[in-house]
Amino acid sequence: MIEKPKLSIGLIGSGFMGKAHVFGFATAQKVFDLPMQIDLHTVADINDEAAARAAHEFGFRYATSDWRSMLANPEIDVIDITAPNALHKEMALEAIAAGKHVYCEKPLAPMAADAAEMAEAAEAAGVKTQLGFNYICNPMLKLAREMIVGGELGEIRSYRGVHAEDYMVDADGPYTFRHDPAGGGALADLGSHALATAEFLLGPIAKVMGDRVTAISERPDGKGGRRAIEVDDIGRAFLRFESGVSGSIEGNWIATGRKMQHDFEVYGSRGALVFSGERLNELHFYSTEDAPGRHGFRRIEAAPDHAPYGNFCVAPGHQIGFNDLKAIEVAGYMLAIAGHGPEPFSFREGLRIQHLVESIQKSSVSENWVVV
Amino acid sequence: MIEKPKLSIGLIGSGFMGKAHVFGFATAQKVFDLPMQIDLHTVADINDEAAARAAHEFGFRYATSDWRSMLANPEIDVIDITAPNALHKEMALEAIAAGKHVYCEKPLAPMAADAAEMAEAAEAAGVKTQLGFNYICNPMLKLAREMIVGGELGEIRSYRGVHAEDYMVDADGPYTFRHDPAGGGALADLGSHALATAEFLLGPIAKVMGDRVTAISERPDGKGGRRAIEVDDIGRAFLRFESGVSGSIEGNWIATGRKMQHDFEVYGSRGALVFSGERLNELHFYSTEDAPGRHGFRRIEAAPDHAPYGNFCVAPGHQIGFNDLKAIEVAGYMLAIAGHGPEPFSFREGLRIQHLVESIQKSSVSENWVVV
Amino acid sequence: MIEKPKLSIGLIGSGFMGKAHVFGFATAQKVFDLPMQIDLHTVADINDEAAARAAHEFGFRYATSDWRSMLANPEIDVIDITAPNALHKEMALEAIAAGKHVYCEKPLAPMAADAAEMAEAAEAAGVKTQLGFNYICNPMLKLAREMIVGGELGEIRSYRGVHAEDYMVDADGPYTFRHDPAGGGALADLGSHALATAEFLLGPIAKVMGDRVTAISERPDGKGGRRAIEVDDIGRAFLRFESGVSGSIEGNWIATGRKMQHDFEVYGSRGALVFSGERLNELHFYSTEDAPGRHGFRRIEAAPDHAPYGNFCVAPGHQIGFNDLKAIEVAGYMLAIAGHGPEPFSFREGLRIQHLVESIQKSSVSENWVVV
Amino acid sequence: MIEKPKLSIGLIGSGFMGKAHVFGFATAQKVFDLPMQIDLHTVADINDEAAARAAHEFGFRYATSDWRSMLANPEIDVIDITAPNALHKEMALEAIAAGKHVYCEKPLAPMAADAAEMAEAAEAAGVKTQLGFNYICNPMLKLAREMIVGGELGEIRSYRGVHAEDYMVDADGPYTFRHDPAGGGALADLGSHALATAEFLLGPIAKVMGDRVTAISERPDGKGGRRAIEVDDIGRAFLRFESGVSGSIEGNWIATGRKMQHDFEVYGSRGALVFSGERLNELHFYSTEDAPGRHGFRRIEAAPDHAPYGNFCVAPGHQIGFNDLKAIEVAGYMLAIAGHGPEPFSFREGLRIQHLVESIQKSSVSENWVVV
Repeated sequence: MIEKPKLSIGLIGSGFMGKAHVFGFATAQKVFDLPMQIDLHTVADINDEAAARAAHEFGFRYATSDWRSMLANPEIDVIDITAPNALHKEMALEAIAAGKHVYCEKPLAPMAADAAEMAEAAEAAGVKTQLGFNYICNPMLKLAREMIVGGELGEIRSYRGVHAEDYMVDADGPYTFRHDPAGGGALADLGSHALATAEFLLGPIAKVMGDRVTAISERPDGKGGRRAIEVDDIGRAFLRFESGVSGSIEGNWIATGRKMQHDFEVYGSRGALVFSGERLNELHFYSTEDAPGRHGFRRIEAAPDHAPYGNFCVAPGHQIGFNDLKAIEVAGYMLAIAGHGPEPFSFREGLRIQHLVESIQKSSVSENWVVV
Repeated sequence: MIEKPKLSIGLIGSGFMGKAHVFGFATAQKVFDLPMQIDLHTVADINDEAAARAAHEFGFRYATSDWRSMLANPEIDVIDITAPNALHKEMALEAIAAGKHVYCEKPLAPMAADAAEMAEAAEAAGVKTQLGFNYICNPMLKLAREMIVGGELGEIRSYRGVHAEDYMVDADGPYTFRHDPAGGGALADLGSHALATAEFLLGPIAKVMGDRVTAISERPDGKGGRRAIEVDDIGRAFLRFESGVSGSIEGNWIATGRKMQHDFEVYGSRGALVFSGERLNELHFYSTEDAPGRHGFRRIEAAPDHAPYGNFCVAPGHQIGFNDLKAIEVAGYMLAIAGHGPEPFSFREGLRIQHLVESIQKSSVSENWVVV
Repeated sequence: MIEKPKLSIGLIGSGFMGKAHVFGFATAQKVFDLPMQIDLHTVADINDEAAARAAHEFGFRYATSDWRSMLANPEIDVIDITAPNALHKEMALEAIAAGKHVYCEKPLAPMAADAAEMAEAAEAAGVKTQLGFNYICNPMLKLAREMIVGGELGEIRSYRGVHAEDYMVDADGPYTFRHDPAGGGALADLGSHALATAEFLLGPIAKVMGDRVTAISERPDGKGGRRAIEVDDIGRAFLRFESGVSGSIEGNWIATGRKMQHDFEVYGSRGALVFSGERLNELHFYSTEDAPGRHGFRRIEAAPDHAPYGNFCVAPGHQIGFNDLKAIEVAGYMLAIAGHGPEPFSFREGLRIQHLVESIQKSSVSENWVVV
Repeated sequence: MIEKPKLSIGLIGSGFMGKAHVFGFATAQKVFDLPMQIDLHTVADINDEAAARAAHEFGFRYATSDWRSMLANPEIDVIDITAPNALHKEMALEAIAAGKHVYCEKPLAPMAADAAEMAEAAEAAGVKTQLGFNYICNPMLKLAREMIVGGELGEIRSYRGVHAEDYMVDADGPYTFRHDPAGGGALADLGSHALATAEFLLGPIAKVMGDRVTAISERPDGKGGRRAIEVDDIGRAFLRFESGVSGSIEGNWIATGRKMQHDFEVYGSRGALVFSGERLNELHFYSTEDAPGRHGFRRIEAAPDHAPYGNFCVAPGHQIGFNDLKAIEVAGYMLAIAGHGPEPFSFREGLRIQHLVESIQKSSVSENWVVV
């Protein structure tokens, strides 16, 4: 039996998303037959103590307070960036320059111009990139795309997508980096997921008409005062796909009661699909080809028929979770690094989402349709 | 015991909606303690035979092939118009001129200018008018409005509405009057319901941005050829209410699998409501005031607490049906005629909906926000 | 056009169920093309005033405080009994003796021996009888039976049924006639519905094993004291159908939060059906014959394909209500009186249900399986 | 920073459940702050090749075809048995004798007498034991128990539980060890889960009345012939808890369409809970204390409020999966080994379930209530 080659990870950041990535590496390694042994090499954080604690907790071999030291380390293959958004560009560009593969949490960068620079640098350097967009790794979304592409819905005619949560619902919640006019807002934060899913399912969007609303006009600035909010709490768009299909999306972070409303509805001439992220193991399918009097939306439960569900569980309907989606993302990226297929969501695709978000933002200002 | 005064109905048309009105009269009379005895006096149809058959089937005392003869008959109090849309204006104006109350199926008229003429004539004549918009008669919508107005959701922040069905999904279905460029289309036919519900719940809409799409570009013309379709199969709008709240609606008659997707979601600072017309006896309510760890959308089932459900059934959760909504509409109109309160949905309100629809239509052409 | 013959009703009782019957007559007459004109002839109540008020409210021509006077009236064809349960037998037997058709609210009589006497008298007299069991009139139950009988589920293998509500949940609710040891209890009151549906779907039950539980051991007696409760708050049974299929039912009137949990699940070798009375317009169907990876419970919405839904509404998915089920029952009974088919649920079938209930009651005492 | 002590695992078996345990170890280590470092030491399988492959795939350091060799190895702390059921007893007793902690997949042993021997041996030896019963590790079940114990439902009055799947639905599926009269059948395989959940929520069951049914009477014997089936395809029981509460459960492995119907309903005097394993992240709660007209079953979504959900994800409603439940089980067992609290489900509790299953089996033969 041949020993698998080692692939060494250098993680920057050990907060919520850093932890989620570590879960993803651990689960991916066990659940998938990856062609490499993932090695949790070094974790970098803002000071030695935080880094050491993270190394201990997450199981990394080394810790550092100097993320740049990892770039110089020839043992490290992948730089995994879960640091604050404002640092993504600088870190990624330096990692690319050092010849590392780069895994970066979303968003790629606050502005599309920065994202473009990053995507182009990575492509020029020939390194593999991955942006965190794990909703599209759901086997039920993969199934939905297969059904659409395979013609099971007939000719596609309309689309409704939404990603709504409620973590900004409290008007007394403080101003955060997510409210930064450079790149912030519900459209960028959540609408981006709705857009990614829309293109994942129906292909490229050709033009958009946007609507952005700031519903909570000021928030505590954390210094005892209040600060005006410029970014949107709700971002909406009408869509035209290149195929000619029309649709709409909404991103909303003040949708009280919603924790994971990553929903879509696709209507075709012979069938329809309805999905809710609140029940991520179900896809509802209506077919006009069912027998008369026997039509209805069918609740398809995730099962081994829907790869890669079967890697997690051989029994149908037992359900995978959010962290499992991250493991699927990690596995796809690992396979891409090993030369098996494209990245699940490369920097190029991340740039694409930034373009879409900015197009919608522009449109909402100009009050005109904007070609993407 | 005092005998109730008689209120005599003259019905024009005996098709699907004529029948639904008759069901409504019959049920309203039994279910509500109305201050009058509804008398099914005369039914008019295109020829004597059809009219006689309808009188027999529906239980009218007289039949006629000349609807105008009913206007001259002093025994008749209400003219109920369920004839084709193109005839609504002429019939209503003559009935008003004859001093009759007028009950008219939607839409009031193809164009807002016509609708305005009708509303104004009725108001000048002092007769009571009613347009068929029975979805808003649902006790769960009444409950929703009470909860919103009563502050149970806190400050309202966003709205999503839709009315989607699939009766036009077949591209080989023929051109009908609903495809007539004067007043036709999914926005007018179904989006109008979504708009009525939006204003019923959140008050007046101030401006709109529209998007209309013709997905099936031509249909059989019924003469062996095909005819281009000019009206929308899907109509969407961004909304700004006068209150400042933003939202969106969609009307769609090619939403495969949908039979009654009259849905809405309302998000406030302290709560949310979610409703689907597919389960018309349920309203889902989320309150931020529930205890920690006990939050969740609560499925409120229609019950005697939610008037006028209790008129139909003293037991909660037993469910009313679509025809019962029509009976509620009839009862409300009867009460208005008797001087108890306003009409549930007068010609003035019907005109309002026409204005909204036309504003969205204009906006979709001009590609600009249109003030209503 | 030939005038329809008149069928005259004499109603006894004007409470909740009397009112529901009147709604049923009114709606049935309008919705179905019945071969007769239903005439609300006379209503009887405990005194002249109550009777007169009911006649006025319900639209009967005459009122009486002497129900027996209706038996002697040759104009009256049907005696409709919605009086207290304890009076059902006496009234029905006299009405049968007078040659009247008899429509009786459930239960037929507190004890099976009485019910047998009633069924036999009616059959000997050749009159048509109907017991109020309107849940089985739901088009979705009719569909379920057709699917089962037609083999769409393959060989049937197991059954779960329940009818649970919560109207007795309050331990401070008073002792009522429903707590009378002669015929009372949740099994008799609600379990009877679960049993009727079970036999409607799967045919005769051959033997039962019962379990009855009194959870609230005493209740206010209405006179300031408390009274011990002997009847069951929960009745359960294991079932063996004559076909060999096994199953279970439960009747429960202290199921907090349940208003209409008339549910069943049927499992066959090639499919399954799941129904909940909380959403009476839906039947969920699973078929093993769906394509691989496309299996799932399909939510069939009531539609014109499912007779007699189409009599109420030509559009699918618009939903009928509880009162509409009563109208279907009335229509079926009217057709039976006119000689078109059997009664929907005759006294003979009511007797059957009493036998089943008593067999379960016996079994719960003897702690043995009881052959029905 | 102090290095955590190592806890070394010796796994027997590398099939589906072996893999699930490995996932559980990997995830538990990352998600929980365990007081030890889990070391995947040795995996044993039927021959060297299978063992080596499993070691490679799962990440164990050593492989062996002789499971007994692991007992003699002082480096190994825990023997984890996922071998066929018939071997559980022998393996566990030898491991206990060797002083190892023992983790064993369910069932503990085919017969209660064997299970008792195992539980007693473990207790005498003072080793920690764990049986695989991960459904009760679901945070929503923990929440349910807290709500019941904390009185949020008032006095508990009735219970319905079920565990139904459909993996035995095909009558041409072959005879397997699950059909072995010694310990086999749906009641033992799935009903055991329903029983464990019932006691987890409501405390000890005092007596049972059973009903077992073999619906598929013979199956292919794998040698070209057919073999009679003696075990149940469906097992049902009426229950009396020691508290006096009554209930029922069903285990069913031929419930077509069901993949994870691990459901329960609990009714109390002031509230109710409804759960379905098909949506394992939701608990539906009805409270009589909601405001009038605002009652309804509330869909509580798993969130950080419901420990240990928050270990997996800081965001509410993002959903955990089946494998995560196994990780919670592993973590609980690891903590118990480290002296922090009791095992989540020890051999003693496994024995209890065997007693319950056998009591129901006996009752179904004797046709009498059996005291547990």
